[in-house]
Amino acid sequence: MKSEKCIIAPSERDADLYYACGFLAPDPFAFVTKHGKRIIILNDLELDRGRAEARVDEVISLSDLQCQARTPENPRPNVVQTLLQLLHDREITALTVPSSFPLLPADQLRAGGITVTPENGPFFPERRIKRSDELTAITDVLRKTEAVLSKAIDRLRASTIIDNQLFSDGGELTSERLRSEIEVDLIRYGLEGHHTIVASGDQACDPHQIGYGPLKADSPIILDIFPRSQSNRYFADITRTVIKGSPSPKAMRNYQVVAEAVEIAEKKIAPGVPLREVHRAVASHFEISGFRTERVNGRMVGFFHSTGHGVGLDIHEEPRIADIDGVFEPGLVMTVEPGLYYPGIGGVRIEDMVLVTTTGSQVLTRAPKFLRVD
Amino acid sequence: MKSEKCIIAPSERDADLYYACGFLAPDPFAFVTKHGKRIIILNDLELDRGRAEARVDEVISLSDLQCQARTPENPRPNVVQTLLQLLHDREITALTVPSSFPLLPADQLRAGGITVTPENGPFFPERRIKRSDELTAITDVLRKTEAVLSKAIDRLRASTIIDNQLFSDGGELTSERLRSEIEVDLIRYGLEGHHTIVASGDQACDPHQIGYGPLKADSPIILDIFPRSQSNRYFADITRTVIKGSPSPKAMRNYQVVAEAVEIAEKKIAPGVPLREVHRAVASHFEISGFRTERVNGRMVGFFHSTGHGVGLDIHEEPRIADIDGVFEPGLVMTVEPGLYYPGIGGVRIEDMVLVTTTGSQVLTRAPKFLRVD
Repeated sequence: MKSEKCIIAPSERDADLYYACGFLAPDPFAFVTKHGKRIIILNDLELDRGRAEARVDEVISLSDLQCQARTPENPRPNVVQTLLQLLHDREITALTVPSSFPLLPADQLRAGGITVTPENGPFFPERRIKRSDELTAITDVLRKTEAVLSKAIDRLRASTIIDNQLFSDGGELTSERLRSEIEVDLIRYGLEGHHTIVASGDQACDPHQIGYGPLKADSPIILDIFPRSQSNRYFADITRTVIKGSPSPKAMRNYQVVAEAVEIAEKKIAPGVPLREVHRAVASHFEISGFRTERVNGRMVGFFHSTGHGVGLDIHEEPRIADIDGVFEPGLVMTVEPGLYYPGIGGVRIEDMVLVTTTGSQVLTRAPKFLRVD
Repeated sequence: MKSEKCIIAPSERDADLYYACGFLAPDPFAFVTKHGKRIIILNDLELDRGRAEARVDEVISLSDLQCQARTPENPRPNVVQTLLQLLHDREITALTVPSSFPLLPADQLRAGGITVTPENGPFFPERRIKRSDELTAITDVLRKTEAVLSKAIDRLRASTIIDNQLFSDGGELTSERLRSEIEVDLIRYGLEGHHTIVASGDQACDPHQIGYGPLKADSPIILDIFPRSQSNRYFADITRTVIKGSPSPKAMRNYQVVAEAVEIAEKKIAPGVPLREVHRAVASHFEISGFRTERVNGRMVGFFHSTGHGVGLDIHEEPRIADIDGVFEPGLVMTVEPGLYYPGIGGVRIEDMVLVTTTGSQVLTRAPKFLRVD
């Protein structure tokens, strides 16, 4: 018996479901396949919109199905009992579901005689390869993000330095304030930013630290902006590192070596090239240039994250560019984001987005790379 | 054998987990109880921050536990294998998990000999009753939301009417534009707005419609704003309906009757009062006032949603004020949001937030109620 695919989730929070049906809804609904046909079940509130917008073969009314599933003993069947009715009608007895499929309905489906198997890995592996409409959507988000980044850098440029700290419009220019200004600008473009990184000084040496407090002069400031479109739901991801004031020779050298690593990776990326080959090329460029990756006082320094990741309806998609199996394939949209982190000098990361083409790769990001913003 | 509670989720997306440990993280981690003590397992990147911030009894290092769980056959145990090690150490053999617990780890825990039972209902029923620090957090979000609402209404007031349509700053004032301005103002207060409703004309008769296109003069405009704080994670929820221009007598009458319904509900709410009694009082006030709820041309008109819902770390919490079992209890924070929807006249909804006290109720919302904004 063939196992069919099933998801129960709110498509606003489940990229697989949105990918599968192209219909955004805030409340959970069921998706199921039958011989390659895609079916969704919607409540009355969403039915009309679903019939107009969803890219599926069939939209079924939840309340119609509930009427069918009704028995004298169970006059108000719940969503799972209703789904069981559909599975019975369509002679489906086995479902493959995402690893994150909720346990309670899974147990209820199993109690109803359905074999439910969670997928241990990507639910739609084809999501890795972007269609041309997806590429257009991602590029649109990227261009808007670049415009917001450019404005943020203008704000740093226009700031003044007092006692090694940045000031603007008469007040301290803090990570929080610049982040808020960036997220406001993103909203104006219809993008939602979360965890936008605006970090300077040693804060920038922790790649998960979003930054807080006054921004420092003469020290690398990492700006990592990765918003999602409120309408098309795709992400873009870009990082630039800048210094307001006078960079130390060490910070300038770190910046130069990271920028070289970006170029090395982007030149190497092509169909059939192993992912780990690109990651290792970046790591060995750092080693050769004299930048060691090691644990110092219990803390990692150097280059200790992956070189990149896929981007699409999720900010982190398969594959990663790391020391793992796998090769580049045409249609992948990936970040390339080497970085070097040394407390005392600061953090430097530069991140582009790259499309893998049939012959090599194309850098999608257009934002210029420069260190000084004076 | 006592069943202990367990959650595996990113606390940023799981209000129960955030409630349980007071620690916000973007990536999934495990929470488990033992005899009322709360334990979380964090990876190296989150460990220091978790030890400083989490409101738990024990923070365990994932990598320490991984070293313990290591065997020659399995040198790199995954998160579930690591959790199994902890459960074994602490002699835990049965777990109660949220209904949304992901299926793959649930199956893996079961294969490891653990009884895993999904909770069919609220995982922490005590979340209904707000502590004083939670009430402070919610009220803070509410005050900021009121400030944003007030500014949005000022924008409508300052707009001009041309051909029954609103214009401001030389351009059309659309739902999209006003929504964007509201969401920008929310960000400035550290709040995140999603699906902010700015709907006029017949659009406002569909309570799920967020609104699009030019805002209409002389027609009710529903502003429903329900942001979450980026820092404390609590929601507030407020709705006001206003008209720019000249309201029709019918729209004025609808507004008046809805405003009366809010007062009736707020006066009735008190500990021990059945939820359905308040809902029925609202519904019967509408009926008595001549406003019928019925299906017209396949579409519901009148009053066809619940009277309110709990608000906290989720926008919709238990209990609902509807035709269901249950009574009001001191410490509940609820919305009261009756509405009337008639195509041709428009939609009217007014929503306050109310705290159930030991003796009655206290309206938390301070935003004034008025229909005309000229």
